[in-house]
Amino acid sequence: MDSTPDTPEQPGNASPGRLPRDVALENIVMMTGLGRYDDVRRLLADAHPADIAELLDPLDEPRVRHRVFRLLPPETASAVLSLVSPSVRDELVANLSDRELAGLAEELDTDDATDLLETLPEERTPTVLAEMPAELAEEIGDLLDHPPDTAGGIMQTEYVSVPQYATVEQAIGLIRRAHDDVPEVHDVFVVNVERHVTGVLPLSYLVLAGPDEAVADIMDRPVISVPLEMPQDEVARVLQKYDFVSVPVVDGQDRLVGRVTIDDVVDVIEEEASKDIYAIAGVESESINLAHDSVVKRVGERFAWVLTTVLLGLVLALVISKVFVETFEKMALLAAFLPVIIATAGAVGLQSSTLVVRAIALGTLSFQRILSVIAREAATGLALGAGCGVITAAASYLINMGSPDILNLSFAVLIGMVISVTAAACVGTLQPIIFYKLDRDPAVAAGPLVTAFNDVLGTTLYLLVATALQA
Amino acid sequence: MDSTPDTPEQPGNASPGRLPRDVALENIVMMTGLGRYDDVRRLLADAHPADIAELLDPLDEPRVRHRVFRLLPPETASAVLSLVSPSVRDELVANLSDRELAGLAEELDTDDATDLLETLPEERTPTVLAEMPAELAEEIGDLLDHPPDTAGGIMQTEYVSVPQYATVEQAIGLIRRAHDDVPEVHDVFVVNVERHVTGVLPLSYLVLAGPDEAVADIMDRPVISVPLEMPQDEVARVLQKYDFVSVPVVDGQDRLVGRVTIDDVVDVIEEEASKDIYAIAGVESESINLAHDSVVKRVGERFAWVLTTVLLGLVLALVISKVFVETFEKMALLAAFLPVIIATAGAVGLQSSTLVVRAIALGTLSFQRILSVIAREAATGLALGAGCGVITAAASYLINMGSPDILNLSFAVLIGMVISVTAAACVGTLQPIIFYKLDRDPAVAAGPLVTAFNDVLGTTLYLLVATALQA
Repeated sequence: MDSTPDTPEQPGNASPGRLPRDVALENIVMMTGLGRYDDVRRLLADAHPADIAELLDPLDEPRVRHRVFRLLPPETASAVLSLVSPSVRDELVANLSDRELAGLAEELDTDDATDLLETLPEERTPTVLAEMPAELAEEIGDLLDHPPDTAGGIMQTEYVSVPQYATVEQAIGLIRRAHDDVPEVHDVFVVNVERHVTGVLPLSYLVLAGPDEAVADIMDRPVISVPLEMPQDEVARVLQKYDFVSVPVVDGQDRLVGRVTIDDVVDVIEEEASKDIYAIAGVESESINLAHDSVVKRVGERFAWVLTTVLLGLVLALVISKVFVETFEKMALLAAFLPVIIATAGAVGLQSSTLVVRAIALGTLSFQRILSVIAREAATGLALGAGCGVITAAASYLINMGSPDILNLSFAVLIGMVISVTAAACVGTLQPIIFYKLDRDPAVAAGPLVTAFNDVLGTTLYLLVATALQA
Repeated sequence: MDSTPDTPEQPGNASPGRLPRDVALENIVMMTGLGRYDDVRRLLADAHPADIAELLDPLDEPRVRHRVFRLLPPETASAVLSLVSPSVRDELVANLSDRELAGLAEELDTDDATDLLETLPEERTPTVLAEMPAELAEEIGDLLDHPPDTAGGIMQTEYVSVPQYATVEQAIGLIRRAHDDVPEVHDVFVVNVERHVTGVLPLSYLVLAGPDEAVADIMDRPVISVPLEMPQDEVARVLQKYDFVSVPVVDGQDRLVGRVTIDDVVDVIEEEASKDIYAIAGVESESINLAHDSVVKRVGERFAWVLTTVLLGLVLALVISKVFVETFEKMALLAAFLPVIIATAGAVGLQSSTLVVRAIALGTLSFQRILSVIAREAATGLALGAGCGVITAAASYLINMGSPDILNLSFAVLIGMVISVTAAACVGTLQPIIFYKLDRDPAVAAGPLVTAFNDVLGTTLYLLVATALQA
């Protein structure tokens, strides 16, 4: 963070720190094309790395992007690299030598450096680490060993800790000495000789206390910390629940080893929401770049779930072909109302499963009251099914008045709709709960799987009723 | 926040601050039932409000919940009230007098007090405000005038600002004086005489600087602030992008009027994700309590979109009944493959629309490259459709070998699947983009609307091909 003490008279406005995007983009692309590198450097010098990343991300020409990237000072370049979208980062990184990459990673906090190294092709990680100072390489090597979606995987090893017998003045001295490594302190952790965290000191306490006060007298207790192996969504939940700006991470012996800060939590919450949303839609992906990702990558991420839908649909086709074809031969009009029943059951099933998945993700699903949840969802399905059944049956009667089978048709539509929709609500509710209980991702159960399953169920029930009525 | 200086030797552990949930829950319920209120008070005294809220939320008996709530000291009770789920809050609030509510709201930060008043039945807001000190009532009244999903609606009016000619020592003095109102300072805002924000001072700068340094010399510039009327998701995006812990909010004259802090942003991100997820699933709701919400409320939140599905499905039923019934009469087997085509097109359409909706929400959709996005999604749809078409056509051939119409059937299945799936990908991509461009919620376009539309499209295309082949 730079301080610019000149002209403090200039009033702040809504966003003077941002480059006016389109203008700057065109200018920089144009100037880079013309080889006016000094002008580009000047334009980029005062810009925030987040703005530069936003500017480089959508650029059409990788060459221009790479040339602009080369013009950035190292501390900006490293920040930009950790902020651009994954596909752009991969492209930039591919053009950097191991030594250059090691230099950029050194500029970052250990958690961001770890994230950067994690995105490298596996064989490059050791060669890049070898170019770093031994101590840092070891620290990052340790961080890389933690699963990326746990407290250990998202924590940083930069933090300020003070012994519990320290005074406020001594604590401030320690912060000052650590300042180069830990620019964003937030909270100071108070530790005993075993490195157990015995208290937490928000910076404001230090500002407000006298220099001779003992930190043990003003610190917050009891301490809430998270273990290394805690899943990242639970870590996020802890910071969110207690409105913390940072939380200490402890190892198996309860010793302080790092901290997770709120900015990481914001990213985790967004990442977890994306994961759930993609799973509900039946897309297998960590991140998507709609403009850059190739058709092959897209098909790869989506084909598995589409194929699941096709295969379940083909089972249904087989059953209809072998069992129910006569039913259709006797009453072709049945086919006219098949789509509306499938679609409605699918819609209600998706509603139920999505609500359950979101409640599990937000931690609001009460497993003590799970039977009540299921019963209410089933009742809701029945109510929705009855409403839709009456409407659809009435419509089928009106549309096909005069047809000889009209009463059978309308009755099959009514019963088929009620049963299918109720069943869809039950399946949609139960499937994610069962997945969760089996320690699998409940969002997967809310996606195409539940929809396809409900399609099969709805159609079969409808046709069974129709066949029974014909008999 | 309380500081407990005694026994600092006790080591921190993973979560000593949390009540061991089930035990405490049972104890408190039991003790409350037995009238051992002093014991309950003692058990609750050291607990964090977030833990108490988590404990009260799932309680089956409103009476016990209310009795426990009454045993809380006011500052804890107010925090608990702002942390429980909406339905539980409504229930607790209904049992409190206007004076009691006003007392609790006074204990909260203005943003949380505003949130609390917003949940009241409309006629109670003025009567509760009337019970508050005039100045606070006016401040909260102003905040209530801002739409709840804008910077003005989520900001708090508690912040610390210092004149730009102040020294570090004077700034610390101001923080000390404001401490009762602003316990969590994070950043100090530096203002000129017009109350324009000319710089931002993270607390760590004050800790590190000498007492006589001028704040203007050490503050961060340029300042990034947000206008009152900025939508909350954009505010969240600003804090997230720049890794801010707080951001100043300014009025139309660029004057400092409040701040948004990172803990609100975390809630906003989660709320926006929930909104999108519910919209994709076709549920109209701000918040869901799966265990408590009545069947009537559930049906109300879901019926509109289910009905949309039914009505579009009935249009399709009408078309099939009047136009395509002969096609089915000639070849009943066509009906066997209708579900698989509908389901597959629906799945692919949901994938495309969800990806676009999420990209818009995350701000990663590049509108400069929108044609490329659409083209790639269409190509992806074609590739998926071709793959599924070949598989389904082959299956239809194998399943119905020996049937006289077998070639026509398989060909109709092939062409129907390819066209429907490609069309679904295009509709799924375009519909949210069009909604967004028309300033409507793109997530609504990703939900049942796009699925139902694709059902109609897929079925019609399939049947058109089949009819053409019969002719």
